[in-house]
Amino acid sequence: MSGERIIYLPLGGAGEIGMNCYVYGYGRPGEEELIVVDIGVTFPDMETTPGVDLIFPDITWLKERRDRIRGIFVTHAHEDHVGAVAHHWQALGAPVYARAFTANIARRKFEEQGLPVETVRTVSAWPETVDAGPFTVGFAPISHSIPESSGLVIDVGGERLVHSGDFKIDVTPVVGEPFDREMWSEIGKRGVRALICDSTNVFSTHEGRSEATVGPEIEKLLSESKSLVVATTFASNVARLKTLAEAGRNAGRSIVLLGRAMRRMIEAAVETGVLKDFPTTVPVEEAGSIPRENLMLLVTGSQGERRAASAQLARGKHHGIELADGDLFLFSSKTIPGNEKPVIRIMNMLSEKGVDVVDDSSGRYHVSGHANRPDLEAMHEILDPAVVVPNHGEHRHLREHVKLAQSRGRKGMLAVNGTMISLSGNAPEVVDYVETGRTYLDGSVQVGAMDGVIRDRIRMALNGHATVTLVLDEDDEALGDPWVDTMGLPETGRSRQPVIEVLEEALAAAMTRAGKKTLRDDDALEETLRRALRNAAQDEIGRKPEVTVVISRLT
Amino acid sequence: MSGERIIYLPLGGAGEIGMNCYVYGYGRPGEEELIVVDIGVTFPDMETTPGVDLIFPDITWLKERRDRIRGIFVTHAHEDHVGAVAHHWQALGAPVYARAFTANIARRKFEEQGLPVETVRTVSAWPETVDAGPFTVGFAPISHSIPESSGLVIDVGGERLVHSGDFKIDVTPVVGEPFDREMWSEIGKRGVRALICDSTNVFSTHEGRSEATVGPEIEKLLSESKSLVVATTFASNVARLKTLAEAGRNAGRSIVLLGRAMRRMIEAAVETGVLKDFPTTVPVEEAGSIPRENLMLLVTGSQGERRAASAQLARGKHHGIELADGDLFLFSSKTIPGNEKPVIRIMNMLSEKGVDVVDDSSGRYHVSGHANRPDLEAMHEILDPAVVVPNHGEHRHLREHVKLAQSRGRKGMLAVNGTMISLSGNAPEVVDYVETGRTYLDGSVQVGAMDGVIRDRIRMALNGHATVTLVLDEDDEALGDPWVDTMGLPETGRSRQPVIEVLEEALAAAMTRAGKKTLRDDDALEETLRRALRNAAQDEIGRKPEVTVVISRLT
Repeated sequence: MSGERIIYLPLGGAGEIGMNCYVYGYGRPGEEELIVVDIGVTFPDMETTPGVDLIFPDITWLKERRDRIRGIFVTHAHEDHVGAVAHHWQALGAPVYARAFTANIARRKFEEQGLPVETVRTVSAWPETVDAGPFTVGFAPISHSIPESSGLVIDVGGERLVHSGDFKIDVTPVVGEPFDREMWSEIGKRGVRALICDSTNVFSTHEGRSEATVGPEIEKLLSESKSLVVATTFASNVARLKTLAEAGRNAGRSIVLLGRAMRRMIEAAVETGVLKDFPTTVPVEEAGSIPRENLMLLVTGSQGERRAASAQLARGKHHGIELADGDLFLFSSKTIPGNEKPVIRIMNMLSEKGVDVVDDSSGRYHVSGHANRPDLEAMHEILDPAVVVPNHGEHRHLREHVKLAQSRGRKGMLAVNGTMISLSGNAPEVVDYVETGRTYLDGSVQVGAMDGVIRDRIRMALNGHATVTLVLDEDDEALGDPWVDTMGLPETGRSRQPVIEVLEEALAAAMTRAGKKTLRDDDALEETLRRALRNAAQDEIGRKPEVTVVISRLT
Repeated sequence: MSGERIIYLPLGGAGEIGMNCYVYGYGRPGEEELIVVDIGVTFPDMETTPGVDLIFPDITWLKERRDRIRGIFVTHAHEDHVGAVAHHWQALGAPVYARAFTANIARRKFEEQGLPVETVRTVSAWPETVDAGPFTVGFAPISHSIPESSGLVIDVGGERLVHSGDFKIDVTPVVGEPFDREMWSEIGKRGVRALICDSTNVFSTHEGRSEATVGPEIEKLLSESKSLVVATTFASNVARLKTLAEAGRNAGRSIVLLGRAMRRMIEAAVETGVLKDFPTTVPVEEAGSIPRENLMLLVTGSQGERRAASAQLARGKHHGIELADGDLFLFSSKTIPGNEKPVIRIMNMLSEKGVDVVDDSSGRYHVSGHANRPDLEAMHEILDPAVVVPNHGEHRHLREHVKLAQSRGRKGMLAVNGTMISLSGNAPEVVDYVETGRTYLDGSVQVGAMDGVIRDRIRMALNGHATVTLVLDEDDEALGDPWVDTMGLPETGRSRQPVIEVLEEALAAAMTRAGKKTLRDDDALEETLRRALRNAAQDEIGRKPEVTVVISRLT
């Protein structure tokens, strides 16, 4: 028995916000039985991943150990925790466990991918548990910004681990279970070997605010509005949607939901009994017949997403509704870093329509779903773990969270993606480093982040592209000069002649200089032409384009 | 005389933050003599302008009226006010006026472009004035975050206009002239027709803080550090650099300046007598011999710029200096919206090195250079203009600033880029709309924003690129099947065959189906091949690439 160990290995989410994926193992080194906690996505951007649709953790390490995976446990239904489960499931094949609401969302994703929905099994809340190989896992309700979030209580090898999942301490969360300090104390009593703990808000030093404090502020805001009100928030924040809808109803407004993601979340919440007493909504088709001052739209697109309802409304008529002077648009959400520009773009489009925009800058109309520093300290105290292992956060968050634990006399352990640590023995220790990374869903294909596909696209975006075509006869004689086509390059440069002509002249000159040997050798000829084009372009337009050289030989 | 009018026309900066460019005119409609205030740049991003080096306002309207331009007045030396003056100067040809520090910076830019530096004329502060056609213009010192910022007092056609330029009300600005309420009251006494006024901070409702409050906080922070300290801020914020350097010196540290832009600003400030008593600095070559706890680096790159000193230090050794556990890195700056991701990337790289990062989230180590709402209200009151015309701001800022003026019983006039308003008569009115836009400096070429060059690059970034090559003989018979080369596309897709083969098969099939007529017609054949490739790609990889078709006909 002494040869067995408990391991923890983050494959995503430790060293970044988003794309959570964690592995726990128990057994003899190299033979551990495994469970996976969350397999989430992160989102692409033009800067690093143009054209990519979604980003998944690279799970090569897990695939190679497929026969040892005993279960996949999903803490909650946010995309950065559940988003890649269906995409990666065929490679892993283990049963998926989640609470009802999360399972409902996960099953929709399995359905979309044509996968068996019965793979996703619904588990009731702690104290119910699931046995998965040597693991016994319970879903302990914890407050967050989506229904039925859970911390996992993982008993294995005689030890108890707690995986917090995303959480905050909120005793009045509007929808779902309040934070239950007593239950968590009880869980901690048995002795907790390690607390693997959410870190995203470790730099927020102030007390967290409860979801319940948002409602009165929104009611106040609505009471001042005499025209149409539109509000946006994260589609999954069912509690906020309820708060917004109730505020609207109390102000005598009919509620219209706009946006597929939002209707889907409400549907899942109602189906699973999580959401009760949601104000009656009105189909968007009826909105036109309701006076503006009696109407409230709840819409998707709080992050400025181009195709979401908020962007559509900002651009013009959407489902027959057009925003106008005196309307109010509320962002009941924070802007995720990186999304500032699209969000600001929408605010300005709304401003052009005369719409009054209210955002979260006052701190009144949104609260975070994550534990601020005081909440983290409280959680450490309640569970009193032998070691705190921060997860879900960038490097700076994890490091600060370790320092926070240490500042209060606790052990803290920094483990970024790929760091396998053993949680057995007196102190946790690093036992291996595993190669991790990202996989891109690109169109309908999964490509590796290091495959060079995206790198080439970025280079074309920065440098433009030129195609050089040359036809040679059987005797390696050129049939005419090389041709140039360009894409994403200016038409004229320094000399004011057409750029294509300038480049073709340079290629013709290079052909004249090229010896017989070069003309016979495709690689050498290609390199000669590429270099000649790039140098001529640098001289003419101050930029070296990406080049495709096509040499056709008649035979 | 009654036929003459005063006009105001923003060509940049009204409807955006950055790229300031404003025109004032006086004369009979369509014959106004003109002055230009500021010609600034804005900065490109991957999302909308990949590969672009700088963005200028489109000054076509001014070029067509070149003979009527009497002068170019530059309020201060920030890039978004002075950055495009040299690039656009040859098209305009008028003398450039600025105060000494701004003129020093402008002349460096003229020198770089090989333009006559004597074009830039130094003007002393108000009450000195410059006559430019019917205009008399004075540079009235106003506090901001760069030395010698000025509001312009523009007397024309018997009226006085005040163009605030970027400003805040700071009576203890550390470097340069304190805000002089008496002088501004005096200027206002004569009656101000219009105040054209900075709007960027109109949503900040709290009192602005003085530059002088930053020093004590930084001193406190430094006193706690026992290792190397690095601080970054905007290179042009000479007052902040002085504050930082003095705090360093007072803590017994030698000061090293890293980054060309920063050394250049200090140099200009010393040359023009603006900066006195700047602590002695040490060349970076000597830094290695100074104990870490006695060293402080002031570095460029507060916005996460990839090549700036802060990024270099975060990545590894730079000029022989390597950051290490226990060092302190201070961002004495705010992150401009859109730059969050690169800044956060640097913070995390620093965290990986064990460096403690302090940013502006506490509000202690940075103050804004722009007027908050109370400062704007004060400025309105001091000058008591007949109308407030907000400038420098996004649409939402301009609109809010108009509302602010109106809320206090003043006239406010919203004029975004291209809106020509007349400031003569009882009330300002829109007299024309002018086409405005942006010009990109792309490599060494200026291209229009609407030329399609950048659009093609963005499309290649999103969709990848494929080249199709086909050789036809004299009888319009294909010599072999079409070839495909790809860039930025995955190598395999749905069928697991090489993508290129799948695409070539589809093209071969299309060739078989193509009639004689199509084969004779380059355009039709090109379209046939393009469509066949895009459809096959959509099917195989879920994405339609950009396509270049090259048809070579042997003759």
